[in-house]
Amino acid sequence: MDSVTLLYSEIKQMDLNSNESIYTAVKEAHARISNHIRKTPLEYSVHLSKKTGCNVYLKLENEQITGSNKARGAFNKVLSLLEDPGHQGKSIKFFAVSSCGNHALAMMHALNQTGQIGEVYVPTFVKKNKLDDLEARGADVRIRGDDMDDTEIFARKEAETREGVFVSAYGDPEVLAGQGTVGLEIISELKHVDAIFVSVGGGGIIGGISSYVKHISPHTKVIGCSAEASNCMEQSIKHGKPINIVSKSTLADGLVGNIGLDSITFSVCQRNVDRWITVTEDEIYKAMFIMLNDHHKVAEGAAGVALASFLRVQEEYKGQNVVVLICGGYVYADDLAKVIDYCK
Amino acid sequence: MDSVTLLYSEIKQMDLNSNESIYTAVKEAHARISNHIRKTPLEYSVHLSKKTGCNVYLKLENEQITGSNKARGAFNKVLSLLEDPGHQGKSIKFFAVSSCGNHALAMMHALNQTGQIGEVYVPTFVKKNKLDDLEARGADVRIRGDDMDDTEIFARKEAETREGVFVSAYGDPEVLAGQGTVGLEIISELKHVDAIFVSVGGGGIIGGISSYVKHISPHTKVIGCSAEASNCMEQSIKHGKPINIVSKSTLADGLVGNIGLDSITFSVCQRNVDRWITVTEDEIYKAMFIMLNDHHKVAEGAAGVALASFLRVQEEYKGQNVVVLICGGYVYADDLAKVIDYCK
Repeated sequence: MDSVTLLYSEIKQMDLNSNESIYTAVKEAHARISNHIRKTPLEYSVHLSKKTGCNVYLKLENEQITGSNKARGAFNKVLSLLEDPGHQGKSIKFFAVSSCGNHALAMMHALNQTGQIGEVYVPTFVKKNKLDDLEARGADVRIRGDDMDDTEIFARKEAETREGVFVSAYGDPEVLAGQGTVGLEIISELKHVDAIFVSVGGGGIIGGISSYVKHISPHTKVIGCSAEASNCMEQSIKHGKPINIVSKSTLADGLVGNIGLDSITFSVCQRNVDRWITVTEDEIYKAMFIMLNDHHKVAEGAAGVALASFLRVQEEYKGQNVVVLICGGYVYADDLAKVIDYCK
Repeated sequence: MDSVTLLYSEIKQMDLNSNESIYTAVKEAHARISNHIRKTPLEYSVHLSKKTGCNVYLKLENEQITGSNKARGAFNKVLSLLEDPGHQGKSIKFFAVSSCGNHALAMMHALNQTGQIGEVYVPTFVKKNKLDDLEARGADVRIRGDDMDDTEIFARKEAETREGVFVSAYGDPEVLAGQGTVGLEIISELKHVDAIFVSVGGGGIIGGISSYVKHISPHTKVIGCSAEASNCMEQSIKHGKPINIVSKSTLADGLVGNIGLDSITFSVCQRNVDRWITVTEDEIYKAMFIMLNDHHKVAEGAAGVALASFLRVQEEYKGQNVVVLICGGYVYADDLAKVIDYCK
């Protein structure tokens, strides 16, 4: 497999301070990735609509290729680098990611589809089944660091020293624009959207979605949804600047971690997110159960956070068109058993 | 809501003895229903391919609108009746179905979308949550009969005496042609298919798929998959004519029941199905677990039958392109808990 060379300066930069600029980048991303990803269903939920008195639509990104929204960002990043016409300057020998979840699966898929090499850095506490999932996709997995922050430092350093490219799960404009394509699909399909509930970890998904939506449909409220156990972005917004917090264990493991003191998503969230809601583990369990039992869908904890947040404030949205992003479905049977046991 | 009148004789009849005739009807069905149904993913299974040495593709009809393949047949039946240009002769005051599963959900959705009235006949042993699901869709549910055969007699009689139309879940040419569109999608997406594994209850789905596939891709093997507890079609094929059997309880409740001594699907299966495989409850549990734990998808027992059948004979298909139809996902958390508990 040949390595790819390119001139970084030739990649058109988007202005993260401008929703219009991100909106344009999301449209470009959509054209770039749409042959590689799935247009997922925007499912009208008969159950939730009846129960809440709202018109509730679930955007089923758990049914996206590789099981989450992350495929959009991964393809946009990889393809936008590869399509650069320069093919001079720095060479890309490999792509490095630090993740043992959806971002790693999505990146490995995008790299396999485009004939590129990937190295996946995971922390020492990685679970055996997640390791197996990555290796099944042909990932060159390297176990480094005792927490995700350390692991990321290893991955970045390897990329720097060996002509690789490190791809962040959220702190990257092309990743953010790719994630935003889910907003484009929602607004294309449902003309009038009153509110969109989106779970927030690093802020890449809500950053991309909110920028697109606020530009084309300014009346639509974007609601940031956090797990009480790890709500760094929400805390940072309250403090007026990115801060570090100490996360607790949560079923919404996809949202855990800090956003980084140099976060590129912070200001986007500060500008675009209309409201923040934090939910407890109890609420996350119940939301996952509703997805499993009433909708027959596997939704991971991070997705449960968005549904739980909507359920907490449902009264305020009666009669309105509400979209809940079901961002992924990466959860194993043992955790599903816990959810069923807890809720039955 | 107006009732619809039409002349039955104006509906073009397909010849169920001819794959070419059914093939044409499937293509017509596809054009008719494609704005109403989802083109579901044909997902390459990294796990199953690695595990078996085959190229395994899962056709995810559990992600179809209303959660199963049945939406295809329901829409084709309802729309083909409504588009009849005659609008004279018998009037349709309502549609009657006898089902407490996927067919009823699919029909209610198709009727709601087209502004028609539905009556759903269910047996006395119907579960509370299935009743709730039907009522959430606005179904006029009528509890009649102590088994499905009796319930069907009630539904047919009501349709006959009150200018309704009874729509069978499988014993109807337009329903069969609608179900066949899943075969069209498979063959359009994957050019060379060596084998397709399809679960068999009444035979409508395998009837439609096999007729389409055998006409356009004669080398493709169609494998009929049965649950040991209720394999009426397979037993009938062995006897050379439709017979009645006594079903036992099975997790694959969607496949339970007799095909009827006047079955229209029997001869289609006799002509087109290359091989029959029967699996045990143990195998169904394990297949459902694989879908849940490795693929993060809810597959109902009937879908587990197809996957279990493939797994039983996987050695014979090494290196081949194999499609397994995941026909639906209508299973509640309590049964999923049993599956997890059994397999962990």
